[in-house]
Amino acid sequence: MSDYAAPLADMRFALMELAGLGEIARLPGYEGVTPDLVDAVLEGAGKFAGEVLGPLNRSGDRERSVLENGVVRTPKGFREAYADYVAGGWNAVSVAPEHGGQGLPQALATAVSEMWSSANTSFALCPTLTASAVELLIRHGSDEQKRLYLEKLVSGEWTGAMNLTEPQAGSDLGALRMRATPEADHFRLTGQKIFITYGEHDWTDNIVHLVLARTPDAPPGSRGISLFLVPKFLLNADGTLGARNDIRCVSLEHKLGIHASPTCVLSFGDNGGAIGWLVGAPNQGLAAMFTMMNHARLDVGLQGVALAERAYQQARAFARQRVQGRPLGADQDGLPIIHHPDVRRMLLSMRAATEAVRALAYYTAGEIDRARRESDAETRMAAQNRVDLLIPVVKAWSTDLGFEVTSTNIQIHGGMGFIEETGAAQHLRDARIALIYEGTNGIQANDLVGRKLLRDRGAAMGELIAEMKAEAAAPESDAAIRQPLQAAIAALETASARLVEERDATRALAGAVPYLRLVGLTAGGWLMSKSARAAARRLAERDGDQRFLQAKLATARFYAEQMLNAAPGLLPAIAGGATVMDYDLETL
Amino acid sequence: MSDYAAPLADMRFALMELAGLGEIARLPGYEGVTPDLVDAVLEGAGKFAGEVLGPLNRSGDRERSVLENGVVRTPKGFREAYADYVAGGWNAVSVAPEHGGQGLPQALATAVSEMWSSANTSFALCPTLTASAVELLIRHGSDEQKRLYLEKLVSGEWTGAMNLTEPQAGSDLGALRMRATPEADHFRLTGQKIFITYGEHDWTDNIVHLVLARTPDAPPGSRGISLFLVPKFLLNADGTLGARNDIRCVSLEHKLGIHASPTCVLSFGDNGGAIGWLVGAPNQGLAAMFTMMNHARLDVGLQGVALAERAYQQARAFARQRVQGRPLGADQDGLPIIHHPDVRRMLLSMRAATEAVRALAYYTAGEIDRARRESDAETRMAAQNRVDLLIPVVKAWSTDLGFEVTSTNIQIHGGMGFIEETGAAQHLRDARIALIYEGTNGIQANDLVGRKLLRDRGAAMGELIAEMKAEAAAPESDAAIRQPLQAAIAALETASARLVEERDATRALAGAVPYLRLVGLTAGGWLMSKSARAAARRLAERDGDQRFLQAKLATARFYAEQMLNAAPGLLPAIAGGATVMDYDLETL
Repeated sequence: MSDYAAPLADMRFALMELAGLGEIARLPGYEGVTPDLVDAVLEGAGKFAGEVLGPLNRSGDRERSVLENGVVRTPKGFREAYADYVAGGWNAVSVAPEHGGQGLPQALATAVSEMWSSANTSFALCPTLTASAVELLIRHGSDEQKRLYLEKLVSGEWTGAMNLTEPQAGSDLGALRMRATPEADHFRLTGQKIFITYGEHDWTDNIVHLVLARTPDAPPGSRGISLFLVPKFLLNADGTLGARNDIRCVSLEHKLGIHASPTCVLSFGDNGGAIGWLVGAPNQGLAAMFTMMNHARLDVGLQGVALAERAYQQARAFARQRVQGRPLGADQDGLPIIHHPDVRRMLLSMRAATEAVRALAYYTAGEIDRARRESDAETRMAAQNRVDLLIPVVKAWSTDLGFEVTSTNIQIHGGMGFIEETGAAQHLRDARIALIYEGTNGIQANDLVGRKLLRDRGAAMGELIAEMKAEAAAPESDAAIRQPLQAAIAALETASARLVEERDATRALAGAVPYLRLVGLTAGGWLMSKSARAAARRLAERDGDQRFLQAKLATARFYAEQMLNAAPGLLPAIAGGATVMDYDLETL
Repeated sequence: MSDYAAPLADMRFALMELAGLGEIARLPGYEGVTPDLVDAVLEGAGKFAGEVLGPLNRSGDRERSVLENGVVRTPKGFREAYADYVAGGWNAVSVAPEHGGQGLPQALATAVSEMWSSANTSFALCPTLTASAVELLIRHGSDEQKRLYLEKLVSGEWTGAMNLTEPQAGSDLGALRMRATPEADHFRLTGQKIFITYGEHDWTDNIVHLVLARTPDAPPGSRGISLFLVPKFLLNADGTLGARNDIRCVSLEHKLGIHASPTCVLSFGDNGGAIGWLVGAPNQGLAAMFTMMNHARLDVGLQGVALAERAYQQARAFARQRVQGRPLGADQDGLPIIHHPDVRRMLLSMRAATEAVRALAYYTAGEIDRARRESDAETRMAAQNRVDLLIPVVKAWSTDLGFEVTSTNIQIHGGMGFIEETGAAQHLRDARIALIYEGTNGIQANDLVGRKLLRDRGAAMGELIAEMKAEAAAPESDAAIRQPLQAAIAALETASARLVEERDATRALAGAVPYLRLVGLTAGGWLMSKSARAAARRLAERDGDQRFLQAKLATARFYAEQMLNAAPGLLPAIAGGATVMDYDLETL
């Protein structure tokens, strides 16, 4: 039994009205993206997510992946579900056709990706990592590497794993120590990697590891890191599987959540060195990683959207059937708790947060498509700047709110929410990691302030602010949203100027996390205002499900009133870097 | 190994400067509470918490309580720790001497209780429940019930368990169905109770269950519920243990956290009915429960304080030793992450939140002492009104913030925080339940608005607001805190008036949770202002550890700048009940 149904109406609305999928489909290269195709993709993915992946979510959490005699066994049904996923052609929806993919717009692929993570976050991690490996090989792999590995990664016949972290090198990859010693046409890798998601599993014949390591003559720190391709099984000359490489799964981590996904400690080179090949230029490993960072961060942000949606659906279903107490003002017993004012407020807060983070993620995905496909170079550049600016916000704000929403789901369940059988606790546990991996949310905020705001002295942010102001000033913008939106934009403008003018960069960074939250809240308000405007227009034109559109409008107003209004209150914290940095460290 | 050390300096400061323990010790009945006694109690409790209870926290989480053949086995070391706890005389610190307790002020007992929950929340739950049973028997028990059971509960030789919840009766106890049929001088109880914390365990020879049930002729709903005493083992005429009563532990819940504490499903009367005796008058069971509600809610609020403290200590220790990246502005490698601006901000936010919720909890505990012991009836009444007003805030705000702080601890740990071995995840898991039990935080907010604010049309809140204004206006109040405090008080005054004037009570309740948060933030700001003033005075007088006092001052300023400034932004949500209640329920 699955308790997840893809929110197709809301996804379509966000794709069309906020990401602009209609216009994207007219860009060169996306000619085949017809409305029928979009519907077929969304409905097919929704069906697979709801019927195949969703029902494995609870059992996967309970059973977990286990390591026995060096072999990782994933929970019952996962291997079969992956085979179905590959057979359905889902692994390559956004990969370009010349590499064997379906070449769908990123915006559409983003909705599909949200569904996988909603239905089963642990399952979805593996294809996400394969997608990163594909992107790296397309951009940096040699022709031979592409010939041998790319097709099978794109189809999903093999999976990819990203080997970055070591015990002393987490956020700071410059500290990593794994060695890669040249030998003939290849390298021998020795050392240990930790936190390797799906670094070992039982889904496919082979796993393609992408591994960061140092060659003997490499400079210290982050400028001496190279990227290597290290397959679990070496390939024979004809491409068939050969000898097992010298990589061993030493243990699996016991984690707070995402239990079904194996998080491996991998030992390379216990028997002389794992054989690997350099990908791209020597010492350019981190640079290569950065080329796929936007995509990876969008995917993690989507996990926040996805678990918020899933938690909302569960809370709504529970609040509609659980009877407890007579709600104030009710004239009968036996009403479900959705009639209690505070339960209703909680549900609305979950829904508004979910719609807002989805709006920002889909909008940003649409900008990725524009950055790739717009015919005009300047338009492409503007879109890319917008993506670069917003990606850390999508990653951090969505996962912050996603976690909060999963906690509200527990709260609506009351005591039942604390019992694991209910499943509410799992969503909270699964959601917590997304605030950490792919760059902690603090690092996202540092990126937003340090790289995206300060380097161009607020230029890209200024362009976004100008667009937001235009939205707020539009005569047809919603009257209930306009004032909170204008106040938030004003606060954002003040905060941005304040950080740009701050001479002590450490003080600016001490305000980075509340600044990122301000950007998220305000950008969310901007897109909710657009949503409200589109809904009002379609209501007036009697275009579409009127009740759904009324709800869009009401949710946008709730967001403005109850969430966006908190934005200006963040200003003192953003400007309060001195309070943080001047605190006597010895007494902290 | 324990990683908890009781924060004695901060506890003493809050007790003396905010709870007013010095003045409380001069009240009739507290004559023996000398400074030496206070020190001995705090230091003794701190030692026991750090050396005995703390080291069992991780292992208890891993091992969990288990049920085997009807017998509950608690984790290794817990039974022995409880024996030590009883032998140390810790079970009865705040019980009046005429009932065998030590009669210490509630304020002091509150600091001790915080230590138990910090060190080992799962362990601390059992004594907390025994204390509730003691309070119920003192107030409502017959002389014979007191003679037979009270002394052993006070000493800790036996424990107490509170049997309230049934599957259909959680927040709504009026829906409970357990039957109590009269027979000779006693009753026979049949039915099932769930979520019974320490309803069965291996620490003591006997367990005294206090059970809510209905007699055959009881009216329906909450006016037909009586309270019964149902011992696990019946007593012989001479008080020795007799036959096993007809109560059976059917299963233990699998919970998100507090794994070491057994949460039991108890079946009463599988073999003819469990024998029990009425406590207090028939059909007055809920009223009896309400008499101990303030105490129980204070205790749960303290769990929020306690886990915030514990999480802060762990984060601080980690941030001082973990080396990762070169902090911006640093001129050397190898510095720990506490030098990163955002890590420093996170630590400060944890510390400020912890101090603020502790301040409010200890202050409220001091008011409980005044309500009990002041010689003037009007003064006692004023203190009791203050307690009644603030208890829901202590319960909900402390546990909300406690949970947030445990999440920040995970964030500071990065990937390590998601790994269970680190222990950070446990604090988050343990902290989550306190937002739910003893009345969900939504119910606390409804109590605050519905009973405490609306019933007296804002009178008690008005008195608190007047005191807060006086603090903000005091010439010696801290200049950096004054403005945010005044803005928060103004928002609180507006919000209170708005809710009192709201004609539709459902709309008022839809704003209750943000209103409670506003009360918490503002009351916290008021007490942080008092702290800052006391610290400044003692700095000027060179009275005490100057560095500690400087830190108190700096933390209070951080609280005002970064937390209190968010208070006015809550107003629209508080006033937004119509947005919530007018939302089309079918589309939610």
